[in-house]
Amino acid sequence: MDAKQLLFLGATTLASSLVSPAAAEVRQEPYVRVAEIEIYPAQLEPYKAAVKEQIEAAVRLEPGVLALYSVSDKENPARVFVFEMYADATAYKAHLETAHFKKYKATTQDMEKSLKLRDTVPILLAAKPR
Amino acid sequence: MDAKQLLFLGATTLASSLVSPAAAEVRQEPYVRVAEIEIYPAQLEPYKAAVKEQIEAAVRLEPGVLALYSVSDKENPARVFVFEMYADATAYKAHLETAHFKKYKATTQDMEKSLKLRDTVPILLAAKPR
Repeated sequence: MDAKQLLFLGATTLASSLVSPAAAEVRQEPYVRVAEIEIYPAQLEPYKAAVKEQIEAAVRLEPGVLALYSVSDKENPARVFVFEMYADATAYKAHLETAHFKKYKATTQDMEKSLKLRDTVPILLAAKPR
Repeated sequence: MDAKQLLFLGATTLASSLVSPAAAEVRQEPYVRVAEIEIYPAQLEPYKAAVKEQIEAAVRLEPGVLALYSVSDKENPARVFVFEMYADATAYKAHLETAHFKKYKATTQDMEKSLKLRDTVPILLAAKPR
């Protein structure tokens, strides 16, 4: 594993400071959001089915949806985090208008006890190449 | 963009229910953690430098560190989230013993006002191929 095998997303400053530009693939900074959702425990299984369906459609159909990572807190499974990576803010706005997202919102709105949607600024997004 | 171009991580159930196994690349379920860190605002810039150095080293040097995505809340930049993907729990334990992680902890421990480390269970981890 050497520096050439590293992929940095949004690593524009890092590219010049830690690794040479030639050694890392640098892309446009993605737009990242973090959703923290508390589900009514009795609704957890239908919620999970709905979010899986929505994520699968979004990543498959929307060019600007780079990744949607949905996880459940091990200590409190009804607490769900979604780490969301879009090409840019426009791609996120387009995502909100899709049929699969609107269906997900309609299906899950009564399953959610609370919902925090956080807009973020990447510090460093680094991943192994796949 | 068709189903063949989708990459699912940890999508063992999805592979059979939503897309045919041949149409998606299915890998072993990663071990995912979500860290939520509150930094003393005056320490934010040195904290960001330390976490960038640690993430760069971990993704480059550790075979079991798949991705470390560090972001700052736009409304409250001193609130930092790190979405962490490891090959398995053993890789996470090995990460805690590395020189770069120990250096990061020693450097940042007095910069952190609070720290929540959450163990999670993936619901669905889906990303575009890169």
